[in-house]
Amino acid sequence: MLIEDRLKDLKAKIDAKVPAGIKVSEVEFEGPELVIYTDDPKKFADEADLIKILARELRKRIVVRPNILEDPEIAADKVNNVVPEDAGITDLFFDPDTGEVLIEAEKPGVVIGKNGTTLRDITKEIGWTPKVVRTPPIESSTVKQTRQYLRAVKDERKEFLRTIGRRIHRDITSKDKWLRVTTLGCCREVGRAAFLMSTPESKILIDCGEKPGNNDGYPYLYVPEIYPLNSLDAVVITHAHLDHCALVPLLYKYGYEGPVYSTPATRDLSVMLQLDYLDVVANETSKVPYSSKEVQQYLKHSITLNYGSVTDIAPDVKLTYHNAGHILGSAIAHFHVGDGLYNIAFTGDFNYAKSRLFGPATSQFPRLEAVFMESTYGGSNDMQPSRKDAEEKLYEAVNDTVNRGGKIIIPAFAVGRSQEVMLALEEGMRLEKIPKVKVYLDGMIKEATAIHTTYPEYLNPDLRKLIFQDGMNPFLADCFEQVDSSSKRGDIIGSGDPCVIITTSGMLNGGPVMEYLYGLAQDEKNMLIFVGYQADGTTGRRIQKGWKEIPLGRRETININLEIKTVDGFSGHSDRKQLMAYVNHLNPRPEKIFTIHGDEKSAIDLASSIYKRYKIETHAPRNLETYRMV
Amino acid sequence: MLIEDRLKDLKAKIDAKVPAGIKVSEVEFEGPELVIYTDDPKKFADEADLIKILARELRKRIVVRPNILEDPEIAADKVNNVVPEDAGITDLFFDPDTGEVLIEAEKPGVVIGKNGTTLRDITKEIGWTPKVVRTPPIESSTVKQTRQYLRAVKDERKEFLRTIGRRIHRDITSKDKWLRVTTLGCCREVGRAAFLMSTPESKILIDCGEKPGNNDGYPYLYVPEIYPLNSLDAVVITHAHLDHCALVPLLYKYGYEGPVYSTPATRDLSVMLQLDYLDVVANETSKVPYSSKEVQQYLKHSITLNYGSVTDIAPDVKLTYHNAGHILGSAIAHFHVGDGLYNIAFTGDFNYAKSRLFGPATSQFPRLEAVFMESTYGGSNDMQPSRKDAEEKLYEAVNDTVNRGGKIIIPAFAVGRSQEVMLALEEGMRLEKIPKVKVYLDGMIKEATAIHTTYPEYLNPDLRKLIFQDGMNPFLADCFEQVDSSSKRGDIIGSGDPCVIITTSGMLNGGPVMEYLYGLAQDEKNMLIFVGYQADGTTGRRIQKGWKEIPLGRRETININLEIKTVDGFSGHSDRKQLMAYVNHLNPRPEKIFTIHGDEKSAIDLASSIYKRYKIETHAPRNLETYRMV
Ligand SMILES: [Zn+2]
Ligand SMILES: [Zn+2]
Ligand SMILES: [Zn+2]
Ligand SMILES: [Zn+2]
Ligand SMILES: [Zn+2]
Repeated sequence: MLIEDRLKDLKAKIDAKVPAGIKVSEVEFEGPELVIYTDDPKKFADEADLIKILARELRKRIVVRPNILEDPEIAADKVNNVVPEDAGITDLFFDPDTGEVLIEAEKPGVVIGKNGTTLRDITKEIGWTPKVVRTPPIESSTVKQTRQYLRAVKDERKEFLRTIGRRIHRDITSKDKWLRVTTLGCCREVGRAAFLMSTPESKILIDCGEKPGNNDGYPYLYVPEIYPLNSLDAVVITHAHLDHCALVPLLYKYGYEGPVYSTPATRDLSVMLQLDYLDVVANETSKVPYSSKEVQQYLKHSITLNYGSVTDIAPDVKLTYHNAGHILGSAIAHFHVGDGLYNIAFTGDFNYAKSRLFGPATSQFPRLEAVFMESTYGGSNDMQPSRKDAEEKLYEAVNDTVNRGGKIIIPAFAVGRSQEVMLALEEGMRLEKIPKVKVYLDGMIKEATAIHTTYPEYLNPDLRKLIFQDGMNPFLADCFEQVDSSSKRGDIIGSGDPCVIITTSGMLNGGPVMEYLYGLAQDEKNMLIFVGYQADGTTGRRIQKGWKEIPLGRRETININLEIKTVDGFSGHSDRKQLMAYVNHLNPRPEKIFTIHGDEKSAIDLASSIYKRYKIETHAPRNLETYRMV
Repeated sequence: MLIEDRLKDLKAKIDAKVPAGIKVSEVEFEGPELVIYTDDPKKFADEADLIKILARELRKRIVVRPNILEDPEIAADKVNNVVPEDAGITDLFFDPDTGEVLIEAEKPGVVIGKNGTTLRDITKEIGWTPKVVRTPPIESSTVKQTRQYLRAVKDERKEFLRTIGRRIHRDITSKDKWLRVTTLGCCREVGRAAFLMSTPESKILIDCGEKPGNNDGYPYLYVPEIYPLNSLDAVVITHAHLDHCALVPLLYKYGYEGPVYSTPATRDLSVMLQLDYLDVVANETSKVPYSSKEVQQYLKHSITLNYGSVTDIAPDVKLTYHNAGHILGSAIAHFHVGDGLYNIAFTGDFNYAKSRLFGPATSQFPRLEAVFMESTYGGSNDMQPSRKDAEEKLYEAVNDTVNRGGKIIIPAFAVGRSQEVMLALEEGMRLEKIPKVKVYLDGMIKEATAIHTTYPEYLNPDLRKLIFQDGMNPFLADCFEQVDSSSKRGDIIGSGDPCVIITTSGMLNGGPVMEYLYGLAQDEKNMLIFVGYQADGTTGRRIQKGWKEIPLGRRETININLEIKTVDGFSGHSDRKQLMAYVNHLNPRPEKIFTIHGDEKSAIDLASSIYKRYKIETHAPRNLETYRMV
């Protein structure tokens, strides 16, 4: 069927469902959404369940857009009238091309109202379609710039979304039915995640990361399977860590022009981390894989999806994201392929334990035949202490150091572990398990934390309740203080007060942590606490192994006199026990499991243990293989 | 290194080895060969081992070509003087572009002389490089036309071979080292053989066949791995059966312009079978996959290799063919990849039992890490009677029928089984185990037999001895008589004499066999003997199952009164026992075995039995998978 006929068809079905008096003038695909244009947006808004019914019947994501738009100035007044003042509206942006008004508010829930009533009231008043985003309670320059950029390129984006929408909804032409997955990286190793899923109709790339600390750190992007890059229907990112998304902008440099799907939080975090990655690479080598221009390309082509939203991303593929419990916005990507042909999930990195920030990864799926799961801690001895034990150990270390008047440096990766440690410290002080001292946040940690406060929907229910119902946002607690400058660092180092400093880089390869180390390492009252894995060859690993002198630049060395501690258990990954429990709880039980994202031993060990314990067919694939799923 | 520099390098090395007084003017790649141009071809020929030494040192196949050429007429006289008369020269063709003279003779061995002395004498006399081919003792129109066509396009071919030669010897550019095999057909099924072997440098397609009796009978040629088709470095055919080579000409239609490697016998047989395939398909459907023009394209781009000749076919791949014992020219394709990186063999179809025509398949290789082996009879119960038992049963049936004055119809596939049955019958008569009656050959069988007589080098030593030393070519025995016309068929049917008729098609789906059946099926004195597998849905299968009436066209039916017998054991495939024995005797023992070319049960059964018995890693791959070898 021609796409025009398909749209006519859809319009006829919508006309039949819409009550008399509401006129649908046009329907059009925009990205994965079906947009209904109407002269009567207010009447549409009156029919509370109409959109839901249409979405279910047509199996499409539906957006209603008015034809005639109220004057923005008058409309703005009306919005401010309808929305209760405590919503804290900070910005209104009217886009005549989409008929949407973007409402930025401190409390988006108040703008939406119970069951969306306030939102519908807005539509009825002004005709414009309201979209609500949160005003970051801590200002995030990433979020701000991302939103500004997307506004600036809105015309291009609209064009792009129409093109993609029509591509997604093209006819299925092949009579063959098969599904294959090609491993382009991250097999029997950690890093450079990249998996190509292909059917006779479509090709989807899942993740496109780098391998940290490795010169050969790219996935096998040169094999013919993914060429031309523009034959890809979609790139799907599981989460923002660089081993999963660092090289997404590179795809645009090589000619990709299609969409990149992710959760909204993943989009913002990955832009932040990619830009930082470019700085780090530029410092280390002269060869930068791409520039910030390609990061913008990525942003321009990004399409965000929330957990649980079933979305057409190719004629024969539906994508649904589910919570992965690993970092903010991290997702298990579940694909429904063909009309009931096959269901496959890529876990990305996941945590099956509840953490301070996130709930455990989803193990329940409507259907599931195959799983590609991470196996970072897949070895039979890869057990981690419980979060509780880890926190006790952390509290003890803080108490010891503060009691002797020392300062604590916690080097940490900006996204994930830092926030876990922050919340543990905040609660420790609140419940008086540790003394109230300043917790300084330096490096990208403050920016990452700002992004966390922008997307509290992605946090676990306990934390959401604390923030929304109890009005207590622990990220905004008094103990935390941002550090922006070298002079402030000097003040902190020079002050006599005990404190905690959480700062990047997590493995002491550059970053502000080096300044703190330089200033504080000589004094044995102070303490350095490792909360994350220290890779071979890093300064962190050397200190962990007991080196007493660390070279700093060409001439200087730092003498390491401060106390060194390692506190395991803050990891965002499932340990061996949790990985096995996850498989056990998977519902429905899959037919096949592929263990990836683990070193050779861990991946093989996990695969064989799962097979032995649960009699599920398992593989520990190698890179550059193709598995036929069906 | 630029190819020009590489050639300069080679020339310097050759100059250093060549004795004073011999001038090398130029060296050039032509296909897989290195051609040395010289003013002194006669002196070159004096140095008996010089070419062998150069070949070994440079690890190249070497051809010497003179710069100045004797007048063809004078040269022809000289050739006829040097070569003993009993060589039976039937044609001389002088090609000034290559400096070669093609000598067609009834006894090529006599032209070559002991250890090539006569051949060297020719070179010394005339300067032209002699190439010797056999005059087919039974005239084969395929061989004749093939040779004529190749002469007609010799300029184009020379150009093509230079291009390919330079491509084969291009520099290796990638620092990655890996080897993958992608299954494009023939996995857990019989038919549509097609395997893509790829490295960072090169891509090679092994076989490209159809699946008989199937509308979906093509390999998965539409997947991105093999595109653009011109990125393939080579197509390598194991043997001429249509399930291995029917769709090679299609590759040219889709844009392939590279070489197709095969043995000389496979080239001629496959051209014959492809042209016949086009006729059969045209009769059955209106959609013909390609035309005879593409068969010519294939022929123009074909490069033939004999067993045992180690040949560069890509910068990092050497191909060596070994006897497969299956049909004339059938080969196991052995690939040496990288400089000692990996060795992999594709058996194609093979027979590990000695048959009347061929020796058992080679099981000895210089190196071997992986094998893709056929598993047609890989099931644990797939035992075949011995050839001896099969022949006894055939003799008994012939005796019974002849004694009662009846005629015997043996439907058979043109290539392989027909000739086995012919030789069994000829010996039966010679040793007086069966009465001397006429054996009529109809359909493509006579043409196929003619090609067999053109390439007796491919027959087993016993048969070669019979032909060359005892002067007794059983294919030329008096009992055999070709049938060319419907009227002759009428005579045979109408005559009162007992006889044997071997004719196509092998499964009674059309072909001259239908005329014989129409004329002879009513009489219960006659006998129909099946010597090959009858697929479901064929007339052959129906008769085997006991149908008494067979529709012929729309109105007529044939009443089946003649006796029906099935004689198993003439198969060109190894049975289960031989497959296992083959694995046991493989030397060196491979690390991995992939069972292909068998139905699902057989492939899996063989794979698991090999693993259990010999502890070799095995896989029964599916279509569309990619396996990483190294
Ligand atoms: Zn991660
Ligand atoms: Zn990861
Ligand atoms: Zn496997
Ligand atoms: Zn065969
Ligand atoms: Zn075959």
